[in-house]
Amino acid sequence: MAIDVHTHVVPADFPAYAGRAGAARWPHMQACDHPGHKTVMIGERPFRTVSDHSWDVARRREDMLAEGVDRQILSPMPELLSYWFDADDALAMAAHVNATIAGMVAADPAHFAGLGMVPLQDPELAARQMQTLRREYGLIGVEVGSNINGKPIGHPDHAPFFAAAVENDLAVFVHALHPVGADRIIGPPLLQALIAFPNENAFAVASMITGGLLERFPDLRIGFSHGGGSFGLVLPRLQSGWETTRAGEPFLPHPPLDYARRMYYDALVYDDLALRYLIDLYGAERLLVGSDYPFLIREKAPGRRIEGLGLAAPEREAILRGNATRYLKL
Amino acid sequence: MAIDVHTHVVPADFPAYAGRAGAARWPHMQACDHPGHKTVMIGERPFRTVSDHSWDVARRREDMLAEGVDRQILSPMPELLSYWFDADDALAMAAHVNATIAGMVAADPAHFAGLGMVPLQDPELAARQMQTLRREYGLIGVEVGSNINGKPIGHPDHAPFFAAAVENDLAVFVHALHPVGADRIIGPPLLQALIAFPNENAFAVASMITGGLLERFPDLRIGFSHGGGSFGLVLPRLQSGWETTRAGEPFLPHPPLDYARRMYYDALVYDDLALRYLIDLYGAERLLVGSDYPFLIREKAPGRRIEGLGLAAPEREAILRGNATRYLKL
Repeated sequence: MAIDVHTHVVPADFPAYAGRAGAARWPHMQACDHPGHKTVMIGERPFRTVSDHSWDVARRREDMLAEGVDRQILSPMPELLSYWFDADDALAMAAHVNATIAGMVAADPAHFAGLGMVPLQDPELAARQMQTLRREYGLIGVEVGSNINGKPIGHPDHAPFFAAAVENDLAVFVHALHPVGADRIIGPPLLQALIAFPNENAFAVASMITGGLLERFPDLRIGFSHGGGSFGLVLPRLQSGWETTRAGEPFLPHPPLDYARRMYYDALVYDDLALRYLIDLYGAERLLVGSDYPFLIREKAPGRRIEGLGLAAPEREAILRGNATRYLKL
Repeated sequence: MAIDVHTHVVPADFPAYAGRAGAARWPHMQACDHPGHKTVMIGERPFRTVSDHSWDVARRREDMLAEGVDRQILSPMPELLSYWFDADDALAMAAHVNATIAGMVAADPAHFAGLGMVPLQDPELAARQMQTLRREYGLIGVEVGSNINGKPIGHPDHAPFFAAAVENDLAVFVHALHPVGADRIIGPPLLQALIAFPNENAFAVASMITGGLLERFPDLRIGFSHGGGSFGLVLPRLQSGWETTRAGEPFLPHPPLDYARRMYYDALVYDDLALRYLIDLYGAERLLVGSDYPFLIREKAPGRRIEGLGLAAPEREAILRGNATRYLKL
């Protein structure tokens, strides 16, 4: 049985907007013709139709146990992260989402654990919320976007947040969000998630390395969704560039590869060959099971691919459970 | 001995600006303290200091033969591609650069062949220039940017250019240029080439697939620099998305993987593990030797890595020479 670190929650409903800045992008739920489904509306536009698996613990447990997962780590649907709101509004949304996730975990703590959200558009405010995540909501970490309103997650401005993650012993899970380069894609909107997300993740991983935050917070536990995106094919070039500049003034005190091997990456790459490459590149002790449950694009029975790779038992077990246990201090 | 498809030329000098639109970004050469070096100025800003290897056939031949390369395919330094100029100015720059490359090839056609440039900001004009590339300059292909002023190379607007490539039997070599996402990078300017270029290449490869041009021009011979960048870790997700949508209305008539395996990619990824992954992904018949000669970031003795991979002789020979011969119709 596997621990699935990459599963999302959408609350069954949202509180009415009660802020002052304006409700233009405040979400609400709309009834939907499909039984058991609702449509998340962002302002007046439908964003995504989701099923009750998004909020119903019993429905999730049924699916996951049938698919070889005995623990799901719950995190907000990324579009709820609310970095684009006034800090007060983002706090209100965070309170609702964090309470929802905390409630789901409390209903069945043997099968679920949770990551919360904080208003990272205000890093000091976000840092102050981190204690609340653990003490008030019993969450074990926090999900953040790959960028905060265009600023990459590894930007030094986010240092107070990362300091608070270390101080409160919370894991950080980075998820692709509002990717750069959407204007470089030709085709239907779906392609944004398929093409721009991996690159967006790559920029995020790179920013954690070159921005110096890993150097500054060596005890930080940080993981990336979607296998770190396409960073696995950026890293060799970054490493080569570091080696070329090493005699002069290298842009980092240690090789990029060393930093990359301090972080975690889920195995959600949909392909044996790619997954093997990531295991060889980052090390088997750095990969985690992730599925994107319950969304359309999810990988069903996410441990099966890992079991099928023919890995030695300790490596297989590490990816299925051991690494997640260490990453999240379960 | 290998055929190196990825080597660049900078002319020893540039003509004075003779256009009407203004010379703000028109390049000129400035003397430099290092013997044998000059600095390319873009307008009044130094862009790159280059050595005489950039234009001197004898100097290049000496290096390449010592490094196991018996033929270099010459292409413009990408910053010369001039898409940001008025079409007339771009034509003037193209005439100078194409004549320079043609002259270098004519000086030693056994060791060199050339790719030219066309003003792709005006696709119809670019298409008309393609015949000139072959007939007037004796070039065998054309280098293009990964994007043309922000429009990805695979945009349907570029169809007249690709039609002319097929009609005139010219290979197309796509090079990363002015990458998207520079604002997602933290650190010195060098990191743009190290981090943003691979992602930029990935967007370019994806655009050729999802934009439908490969479907429209099945006889097109097209290759990508830097191993297609990070596209190798975007493709599995794109493929998975295609399979998920296949029952409904897939966004392409054939699987993305099929299109990806119709194109060529140089092996300039600086890493054995990454190169093996690309060979497994795209097929040994799709990889080419490329070095980025003569720039700082180049890979020396670029065939050596391929020889060291322990490939079967036919695969090794294909990557060293056979694929380039087929791609470029040498």
